[in-house]
Parts: sequence; C-alpha cells; structure tokens
Amino acid sequence: MIRIGIDMMGGDYAPLEAIKGVASFTEGNSAAVHCILIGDENILNKHLNDYPLPAGSFSIVHAPEVIEMHEHPTKALKEKQQSSIAIGFHLLATGKIDGFISAGNTGAMMVGALFSIKAIEGVIRPTIGAYIPREDGSLGLLLDVGLNADCKPENLNQFAILGALFAKHILKIDSPRVGLVNIGEEEGKGNILAQAAYPLLKENTQINFVGNIEGRDILLNKADVMVCEGFTGNVVLKLAESVYDIVQRRKIKDEHFERFNFESYGGVPVLGVSKPVIIGHGISQATAFKNMINIACRMMETDLTGKIQESFSDKF
Amino acid sequence: MIRIGIDMMGGDYAPLEAIKGVASFTEGNSAAVHCILIGDENILNKHLNDYPLPAGSFSIVHAPEVIEMHEHPTKALKEKQQSSIAIGFHLLATGKIDGFISAGNTGAMMVGALFSIKAIEGVIRPTIGAYIPREDGSLGLLLDVGLNADCKPENLNQFAILGALFAKHILKIDSPRVGLVNIGEEEGKGNILAQAAYPLLKENTQINFVGNIEGRDILLNKADVMVCEGFTGNVVLKLAESVYDIVQRRKIKDEHFERFNFESYGGVPVLGVSKPVIIGHGISQATAFKNMINIACRMMETDLTGKIQESFSDKF
Repeated sequence: MIRIGIDMMGGDYAPLEAIKGVASFTEGNSAAVHCILIGDENILNKHLNDYPLPAGSFSIVHAPEVIEMHEHPTKALKEKQQSSIAIGFHLLATGKIDGFISAGNTGAMMVGALFSIKAIEGVIRPTIGAYIPREDGSLGLLLDVGLNADCKPENLNQFAILGALFAKHILKIDSPRVGLVNIGEEEGKGNILAQAAYPLLKENTQINFVGNIEGRDILLNKADVMVCEGFTGNVVLKLAESVYDIVQRRKIKDEHFERFNFESYGGVPVLGVSKPVIIGHGISQATAFKNMINIACRMMETDLTGKIQESFSDKF
Repeated sequence: MIRIGIDMMGGDYAPLEAIKGVASFTEGNSAAVHCILIGDENILNKHLNDYPLPAGSFSIVHAPEVIEMHEHPTKALKEKQQSSIAIGFHLLATGKIDGFISAGNTGAMMVGALFSIKAIEGVIRPTIGAYIPREDGSLGLLLDVGLNADCKPENLNQFAILGALFAKHILKIDSPRVGLVNIGEEEGKGNILAQAAYPLLKENTQINFVGNIEGRDILLNKADVMVCEGFTGNVVLKLAESVYDIVQRRKIKDEHFERFNFESYGGVPVLGVSKPVIIGHGISQATAFKNMINIACRMMETDLTGKIQESFSDKF
C-alpha cells in the first residue's frame, strides 16, 4: 500500500480542484494507493459531499492553517506549523506518508523538501526540473529550473545523473541523452561554469552525454535531459510558459503549442531528496493533481529514490 | 557625407542579397550616404550589372579573401588580412569609413570590433543586444546576448546605460525602462550576480530602472531594455528564434509571431565601441542589409557614439 499525502489547500483552485483530481485518480486506481488529504477538515468534508471518494481509499488529516502563495517560505513554515505544507512534511519525515504533493507556495515546498527530509547521501544539492514539450511530440527534462541559482560544475554533473535516472525510470527513455545547455556547440564554448562542467559530463560513465545544446535546441529533440544552473533554467522555463500564454491570447489553435500548457504535466519532483516530493504549479487543476499523484506513484513503484541512492553511493 | 562600409561577402546569401539591400537603400537615400562595398571586385561588378546602383552613391574596395562562417575568428582575421572583414575593420580604424556592417562570421566581427577599434573610455566591456518583439507591437532590447558569457555586476550596470542610450536615440523611446532579467520579482532575488547588480542599477541615476523582470516578462512590454549576462541572453535569444522556426514549420499564420523573424531586424550594433559596427544575422537578405545600413545611419545622425562617450566620461 502506497500512502500519498496531498496538500489540499495549495494552489489557486484549492481545495475543489485537488478533490476533483483525487476523485479522478481513485477512479482508475487499483486500491493499492491510499490518499491522505491534508487540509481543513470542514471544508474538505463539504466538498466531499459533491465529489465523494470510495470509502477506504482516503483519509483526512486536519490542517487548520494555510501558507498563502505570497508568504515568505521559511518564516511561514516556522510560524504556521499547523499548515497543510508543514503537516505534510512532518508526516513525510516521520514515515506516516511515503510521498508528498502540493501545488502551494513553491518556496515553502522547496524549503520543506530540503530541511524536513534529507538529501540523499552524496547529493550536494537536490534539484527541480521541468518538462519541455518538443516538436516531435516527445518530452524533455530541463533542470535545474530555479532551486539552485548559482551552481558549481559538480552540481551540474549531479543534476545530469538525477535527471537521467528520472528520464529512464519515470519517462521510460532508455539511455537518455544528456545535453549541457550552452552558447555554442563545440567543447570549450560557454561561460566558466559550462566550460568546467563539460569535461565532468564527458567523463561521467553513468550518463549518455551528447555534448552542448544551444537555446535553439531546447524545444527540439536533441537531448532528453538538458542541464543548466537554475538561473538560466528558470528564465527559459518562464519564457516557454509565456509563449503558451501568448498563443492562447492570440487564439492560435495548434496541437504542439497546446503542449506548452505546463499545468497539464502536473508538477515536477524534487530530485535528490530521500523521499518523493512533487511541487505543482500554482494554477494546477484536477488533471494536474491527478498527474502529480500518478508521478508520485510511479516514483515509488520504480523505487526511483533507491535507484538514486545506489547511483550516488557508487560514485561520490 | 556618411561613409558606410558594407561587407558584401558575409552571410549565407552574399553577395547578391547584400547588393539588393544596398540598391534598396540607395533608392530612398538622399545621397548623404556613400556606400563602400567591400568584396571581390569581379563578382560584385557582375552582380551590379543586374542591380545597378546610381553612379557616385557607392565605391568598391576589392577584398579577394572571405572569412567563412565556420572559421576560427582570431585565426581567420590574422591569416586572411585581405578578407572583407579584415579590410573593413582596417578602413574603419584608419578613418576611411565611418561605420561597418557585416552579416558574416559573428565571432570575427566581434573580435574585429573589440581589437581593431577601441572600446569607449570607461566602458569595461562592449556588448551586443538583440531586438525582442513584444505582444503589443513594441520592440525591446535584450543585452548582452553572447559577447560576455561571464559578467560582473558592474558590467550589467554599464550594459544598462548602453542599452538605454540605444533605446532612446535609435528606438526613439523616451526615458526607456530598464529591467534586470531575474528569477523573481522582488529585490534580493536571484543568483549572486543579479543580487549584486540590483543595487547598482537602482542607484544609477542615468537610467530609469524598473526592477527585476522574469522570463515570462521578456516577451511582454515590462521593460524597454532588459539586462543580463551573455549566457542567459544568448540562450533566451536562440530559444525565441527557434519559436519562430517552429511557428513556420507548423504553418501558423500569425502577425505577432511573424515579428519573431529576427532576420528582418537587420542586425544589432556592438555597443560601447568607438565607432558604429553592426553585426547581421548569417541568414540576412536584402531587407536585413537595408535595415542594417539604416541603423548605422541613425547611429551616426544621432551621434550615438558621442552620447555614449559623454555618458561614460561623467560617471566612470
């Protein structure tokens, strides 16, 4: 039995869309997953009248407080110990749940992931990635997208391993190609960080390194895992998100650009921490919640955390 | 009389499109501009039979060699002293032409700009920017887009001044808003560089600093001048260019995304060097060449270089 904790109060459309997402997930669920709904009991029960869940498929953990989207992460986590995020990480840290999902305050989720549960031994800095839709219909993984604004070459090398394991086990890509985001194709190009990271990636036998990829390659299928520091990654991700918004506002109907709706991917895992944690987009709706639960399940079924532990115990 | 040197051998469609561009420019030109066509005399004369230019509006400077697109910049400039780019910079450095334009080897153009002519006194590092089309029809300037992959906070502060002067005098924007590309809106966000650059920009009385802008704001009209180091800027620019390619391949007809055809803007100036130098896209066609000549003219008419000199003599 997999026990997944879900922050029902996080995100712009909580708790209604969270409940709808759980309902949608449980419809196709073989009862091997138990959902722990963390949030205000009264509010949740009210909504559960409209969207009833099968008895035994869920339980509620009452959390009377909510960390709002604009709150300062560390301060909020400290002061609102009865919030859904604080309680979620407490349950995760004490082994009451196996994974935790939230579309709430991203900063608070990151701080919680970094400090409530530990980084896997050998992982210098955990990372978060984002899916990138490519023209040929495939999905790539870009990481880091904002957790680590300043990086050392060794961090990028570790992100490559973490991303490759995620791509292999969760995206089911055999021998995922790892590319280094850079400003030129040839070895030796780039800023000091990229120049120093290149040889580490090249010599890393745990990954299938395919060299540098440029900005123009990010939306194409040149690499499955695209590695950069979190500053560039964050700017790139938000720019790509804004392309979707522009396409929507201009009423362009196009199948490919529909896939730039990042909300539909249902959040990204924090990679390199000792338990599955998934951070959703603030605008997550039912499908996104359902997808997040699915990703968390897949992470547990494939024992991604164990695979990462194994990988890092060998090498670092 | 403004004397503009044009590398007729640079770019994928040289020299034909270059000649067509010059012809198109001279049609609307009041004879106050003299075009110095630098390239292989025989080839140029052959094309000039098909696209005749008004006598007296141009002269040819013979350059028997060509620096190809893939050649190593420094090596090529040194070994091919009879190339159109080397001769162009020689003419510029010796005062035989007032400005120089090329759609050829970008690296060679940068090296030439940095070493053949000098940086303006006080400018630590010259920069290159790119136009960014925004949804409301306006154009923004993003800089640096690749000349300076590693920057210090002081560099970004200077890019802000250079970009603001360009936006004011060439794009004709009064009091252009300067934004710092960053991964959060609030002061204090970002990597070490952005955190350190913010207070410099805030205290800089020569610019109208409007704070941080995120990736999602780059394609909107939140700032006229968007400042970042050349690594992020280059990745962003090439990503934006690739969006245009995808839109074309998917046969999406949309007025706004048509403006992502960066070729049509006709190149970007190297800002901070002592004379006007414009670097065009390798795929430049006639319109791009015409636009580049126009930008060079406007830079000279408004004495942008003098304005920059003045600005930097005050402050640095």
